[in-house]
Amino acid sequence: MTDNIAKWDFFDLVLEGPSAGNPYLDVSLEAVFSQGARSIRVPGFYDGDGRYVVRFMPDAEGEWDYTTKSSVGELNGKSGRVTATAAAKDVHGPVVVTDQFHFAYADGTRYLPFGTTCYAWTHQPLALQAETLKTLETAGFNKLRMGVFPKDYPFNTNEPLHSVFLEGPDGKPDFDRPNPVAFRHFEQQVGKLRDMGIEADVIMFHPYDRWGYADMSAEQDYRYVAYLAARLAAYRNVWWALANEYDFLLDTKPMEQWDRFFQILEENDPYGRLKSIHNGDVRKNYDHSKPWVSHVCIQNWDVKRTSDWRDDYGKPVINDEPEYEGNIWPSWGNITAQELVHRFWTTTMRGGYAGHGETYAHPEDIIWWAKGGKLYGQAWQRLKYLREVLEQDATNGLTPIGKSTDFPWSRVSGATDGDVRYIYFGEHQPVEWGSGLPMEPGDYDVEVIDTWNMTVSKAEIIDAIVPHPTRHGEVVRGGKPLAAFSVKLPGKPYLAIRCRKKG
Amino acid sequence: MTDNIAKWDFFDLVLEGPSAGNPYLDVSLEAVFSQGARSIRVPGFYDGDGRYVVRFMPDAEGEWDYTTKSSVGELNGKSGRVTATAAAKDVHGPVVVTDQFHFAYADGTRYLPFGTTCYAWTHQPLALQAETLKTLETAGFNKLRMGVFPKDYPFNTNEPLHSVFLEGPDGKPDFDRPNPVAFRHFEQQVGKLRDMGIEADVIMFHPYDRWGYADMSAEQDYRYVAYLAARLAAYRNVWWALANEYDFLLDTKPMEQWDRFFQILEENDPYGRLKSIHNGDVRKNYDHSKPWVSHVCIQNWDVKRTSDWRDDYGKPVINDEPEYEGNIWPSWGNITAQELVHRFWTTTMRGGYAGHGETYAHPEDIIWWAKGGKLYGQAWQRLKYLREVLEQDATNGLTPIGKSTDFPWSRVSGATDGDVRYIYFGEHQPVEWGSGLPMEPGDYDVEVIDTWNMTVSKAEIIDAIVPHPTRHGEVVRGGKPLAAFSVKLPGKPYLAIRCRKKG
Repeated sequence: MTDNIAKWDFFDLVLEGPSAGNPYLDVSLEAVFSQGARSIRVPGFYDGDGRYVVRFMPDAEGEWDYTTKSSVGELNGKSGRVTATAAAKDVHGPVVVTDQFHFAYADGTRYLPFGTTCYAWTHQPLALQAETLKTLETAGFNKLRMGVFPKDYPFNTNEPLHSVFLEGPDGKPDFDRPNPVAFRHFEQQVGKLRDMGIEADVIMFHPYDRWGYADMSAEQDYRYVAYLAARLAAYRNVWWALANEYDFLLDTKPMEQWDRFFQILEENDPYGRLKSIHNGDVRKNYDHSKPWVSHVCIQNWDVKRTSDWRDDYGKPVINDEPEYEGNIWPSWGNITAQELVHRFWTTTMRGGYAGHGETYAHPEDIIWWAKGGKLYGQAWQRLKYLREVLEQDATNGLTPIGKSTDFPWSRVSGATDGDVRYIYFGEHQPVEWGSGLPMEPGDYDVEVIDTWNMTVSKAEIIDAIVPHPTRHGEVVRGGKPLAAFSVKLPGKPYLAIRCRKKG
Repeated sequence: MTDNIAKWDFFDLVLEGPSAGNPYLDVSLEAVFSQGARSIRVPGFYDGDGRYVVRFMPDAEGEWDYTTKSSVGELNGKSGRVTATAAAKDVHGPVVVTDQFHFAYADGTRYLPFGTTCYAWTHQPLALQAETLKTLETAGFNKLRMGVFPKDYPFNTNEPLHSVFLEGPDGKPDFDRPNPVAFRHFEQQVGKLRDMGIEADVIMFHPYDRWGYADMSAEQDYRYVAYLAARLAAYRNVWWALANEYDFLLDTKPMEQWDRFFQILEENDPYGRLKSIHNGDVRKNYDHSKPWVSHVCIQNWDVKRTSDWRDDYGKPVINDEPEYEGNIWPSWGNITAQELVHRFWTTTMRGGYAGHGETYAHPEDIIWWAKGGKLYGQAWQRLKYLREVLEQDATNGLTPIGKSTDFPWSRVSGATDGDVRYIYFGEHQPVEWGSGLPMEPGDYDVEVIDTWNMTVSKAEIIDAIVPHPTRHGEVVRGGKPLAAFSVKLPGKPYLAIRCRKKG
């Protein structure tokens, strides 16, 4: 018998086996899936009640033969065949790194991450989870940061929907017995996001804990990471986020362990999903140049440094926490909508990507950032607009026009992608502008984008600015035009220029 | 015969001497002024037409005896007596560094620098210079950055009122012959500022040059620096600014020369006026820890780093160019008024001082930043207000509450001065706040300052914020109140809290 699944969907090979003892600890299971010369080792997992699963996502059409290997006879040597059919029309596959600093789906379609956070949304009441999904349908975000563990933190004091581990005889969670109900629910929600075209940035560890998850032994941590890989890696929208604010966990999980977590993923994730790790203290970035890190995940409000981080690590930069729009008392959660939109534009126009979060005080502490629900702010619409603007022209991804220390690019932001270029002014409000515009005369479409009011208007082209000749330590610049032409501007902040070469 | 002058005013000892040859090069002149055990060497200068001057500012009341020393007989050995009377009631003397990071007048009155720039104002038509002084009467600035040399730069193409050096036979300026008319005019304007209570931050060199001043020989530079010291040091409001953007002059004046300029001032300025040097490229700060630098003068838009610069150099920090309010095309000259006011508050609330400049496009290029005239912007009124607010409580100067890397002080700004403390939120808009407020219960006046609308209102005190207990790598913080009380806020940006201890 053959099972049919579409490429980039997954197939669960379900087997019956022993339920006695603790299969999570005692039973090993994996399968090798082969197609022609290719063989892929796929770890299985125990799903409770004698149910064992090997979850496989084919990345190529055609027939795949498999055989299982297990420490238990009844699970060993099972074989069969899966036929992978064409992917559904609107399915583009998992997201991968491309062009060094950017992302695309496996089919080559560009992917520009516009993420938000609902760190503990899967642990909230089901009605609230449904509302979160409804909000996400129209919010314009295509990535969601979400934790496997519940959150214990200011504004987050409720008990989770499910305990992540089963209760032991002492009434405490037994970290050697994952709760299948909790994980089935978590992966169901990951699946719903996948079907909405939203990447799930799955956070494995965080310090916001009262249940003891932050204090599991190293062995328990390693087993848990491998278990997540076996259960979730087949979801094409999964990204591995080793931690939120890993550095606040260094007291219980030293640096070697973080390195090891990455290695366990490399050993147990057959698909090589994206892997990152997020810092708390701005001085405590993980060394993102380590080979197992796929992209830089960073928390930093100083977004004009984005191009520095590109240079430092040579990988895509996602600033997943440039502070959040809101008004709660913690200082990371109370910047204005305008400031967050400004930080997105600045980050993007320096060759990186930014992340959204919303933290408006709520009478029942139902705050989007952690619990989901509704969005109350004014940034999300502008970020959706920014995404739409960028997707119109995205080809190879944006490259900063200058380094963060180059004049004038330390002050204003600019980036190019093939024949399109943008200059973003933020707090600057020139009435005319020349730097960074094309040096070659030609036929260009030049527009002014109002990033807050979400309007685009044709720009008035004026004669090139020719600076009065001056030595100024830059003799070469004296009297040379800044560009082939200049652009007249209305002299207000938060504007951008878009310049496209015609034809 | 005895001359009478008030302490901190000056006395010109005028002598007739030879006018043949080039006295500027050939004639040495100085006088020693003595009072009791004190002797002060005061260099003289040649003022043209056989007129020689030794300019002396007594810093103590009573009688001062002097004797001249010269390479020319008729100027040598002249002696006399000057009686210094009490300073006029509103004269506080020269500004000096106090409390390591701050400034005060010689009589101990606090001085909080709120400077602006009119770099080339003394080279403009006299009517415009008069208008500049009129504007300064009410603008609220108490320091002005101004260059000895005229400015050749975009928006600055007119010829100066006076050539700084006399014309040589070849029709070019002879850098060995200062033009007394030019210097008399310059010092007259410095004197007018003094009488208005405005410090003159006298810029000796800059790169914006078409007359050859930037290319004088090292010997000519050294002579010119000594000449400025002899002419201007007696003005109690003079500060020495060795350069604007010295690093753009390194091609003609290597680093050793800048060090030497400082040393020449130490040798020839009997009063030890404040000495600083200003960078162009943010990567090219002069080493302000060198002993002859009195305070850090810096150009940098990244004002949240202000407390870093305090730590780096251990001296007062004046960010004289955190970009200018305006709308001209150069990116350093087109930030919004709101952003500049924000940068002033941020700088101040991190223990530093900032400088204003205004650069609005003008049909005849009469732009305040370089030429003076009128102010057209909206920042200056708010900076005047900030100065008034700070002067109400200034005692020992503001000390930052946290380092720029400490949470939450990397994000918001706070500073204390004795029993008063401020927290400035800028782009942050919390609806309640606790961090940085007093830990000890007590009787406090707490107010909310709207930095843009220039209003102060009594703050609503609410119960202390007690964060939900959380390990978060900071076990100690768990469940402890952030302060003795919290403050309710309106949830809008650009607000500050002022908290004064009563009684």
